[in-house]
Amino acid sequence: MKQYLPFLFIIALGCNQPAEKQTLSQFLSKGKWIDLSYDFSSETIYWPNNPVGFKLDTQFNGKTAGGYYYSSNAFFSPEHGGTHLDAPVHFAEGKWSADKIPLEQLLGEAVVIDVKTKTTNNADYQITVDDITAWEKENGTIHDGAIVLFRTGWGKFYPDAANYLGTAEKGEAATAKLHFPAIHPELAAWLIKNRKIKAVGVDTPSIDYGQSKDFKTHQLLYAENIPGFENVANLDSLPAKGAYVFALPMKIKAGSGGPLRIIAWVEKP
Amino acid sequence: MKQYLPFLFIIALGCNQPAEKQTLSQFLSKGKWIDLSYDFSSETIYWPNNPVGFKLDTQFNGKTAGGYYYSSNAFFSPEHGGTHLDAPVHFAEGKWSADKIPLEQLLGEAVVIDVKTKTTNNADYQITVDDITAWEKENGTIHDGAIVLFRTGWGKFYPDAANYLGTAEKGEAATAKLHFPAIHPELAAWLIKNRKIKAVGVDTPSIDYGQSKDFKTHQLLYAENIPGFENVANLDSLPAKGAYVFALPMKIKAGSGGPLRIIAWVEKP
Repeated sequence: MKQYLPFLFIIALGCNQPAEKQTLSQFLSKGKWIDLSYDFSSETIYWPNNPVGFKLDTQFNGKTAGGYYYSSNAFFSPEHGGTHLDAPVHFAEGKWSADKIPLEQLLGEAVVIDVKTKTTNNADYQITVDDITAWEKENGTIHDGAIVLFRTGWGKFYPDAANYLGTAEKGEAATAKLHFPAIHPELAAWLIKNRKIKAVGVDTPSIDYGQSKDFKTHQLLYAENIPGFENVANLDSLPAKGAYVFALPMKIKAGSGGPLRIIAWVEKP
Repeated sequence: MKQYLPFLFIIALGCNQPAEKQTLSQFLSKGKWIDLSYDFSSETIYWPNNPVGFKLDTQFNGKTAGGYYYSSNAFFSPEHGGTHLDAPVHFAEGKWSADKIPLEQLLGEAVVIDVKTKTTNNADYQITVDDITAWEKENGTIHDGAIVLFRTGWGKFYPDAANYLGTAEKGEAATAKLHFPAIHPELAAWLIKNRKIKAVGVDTPSIDYGQSKDFKTHQLLYAENIPGFENVANLDSLPAKGAYVFALPMKIKAGSGGPLRIIAWVEKP
């Protein structure tokens, strides 16, 4: 057996040393962070029936009697505007409010379904099961625990209400003039039945398309405690799969939703 | 050499196989999530000079004409209350506002300095360089990029204003009656000079102690673009080191701070 000795040495040297235990910090350093959130300002997009959107009031800004600089504000906002969470209770009585959604439901690997080619000439496009099938053909079955983000391309219009919402008018009557793409209720039903997803997100103002009258996609998903993220920004920066999403909403007790800071970690190539 | 053969076999078999590339999702599954945020409600703690704190107004709650359930609210809040961010511009003109803080500054490994024994009989305790020295003696030097969280034990009083703030009174005059521990300005200066930290956090209402008149700790840290997290919850659940903090504030354009959803990942033992 003496002649095999060199080979054994090679095997012994070539194998990995039991690696020093990696920290999360070290793991994360292999990727970069992408902010998927719009800021809140007087330009923030709200549903037309909100007469007032985001409002920031200065409490103090300048030199104090003590001689040091100080600035502080108070703000007002409807829960549903800008980059925000829809808690399931928004459309499903008794389901999770913003403060009750388990953190695990808001953190997960993203699947990004691109339907830009379908929306180019059709602001009323509703994303279908076929769009999922096409994605899965290329990327494999949507895994359990996925956060499914739909990229319609609408982000390029934000915050231009006329193009992003379909109308810059305000008031209840303006809701009939909303035109933007989102998720077809049949797709919502299909996802519930066939995949185990944590949440959905869209780069448009709502997970139901602008012309929806019954918000069926909301009703279906929220009845299953699957939250929605609306007006998600910068989806163009995400790969079709492999990004990891951290969606942390303001923790409003009994809230039906609220401001959402959503970011993604993407591994560097 | 024949007699060494068995040892070589052992070495060859005992070494790790080149591991399949791990995903972030797989890495995170080795730990658990801890929510370090209080919810926002009428009980949320604000500085006494805020006549109104958090206010949630129902826009709609019940069955719609369409026959489906719907709930939606609007809310009002001063930026500085509950679990919240102090953006550097809160006390340092021209420094980062809430929307301008780079994500990297808000994400990092936590160092948790426990000073409970010092605060038990002293609501006016200011955390000193000695407290850091004691921590470092046991845990090693605070690493670059640390998010330094100070655990005074005050969390047990939240949201009981009389005990947590030192007074349940409202109005400008009540600010003289504030008693709670926080960070001594000398420690703030020492950290700036001797350590490279990303942010600080406290389980009390402010990073300066209740009796502060000039908010020197705020002034010093924010001048260096080191943000502060106030009213941080559940610090008892964190180890002295090794937790990883994700502190995602509401993205208020030009905000001096705002609601913060802060969570930590802690590896399972």
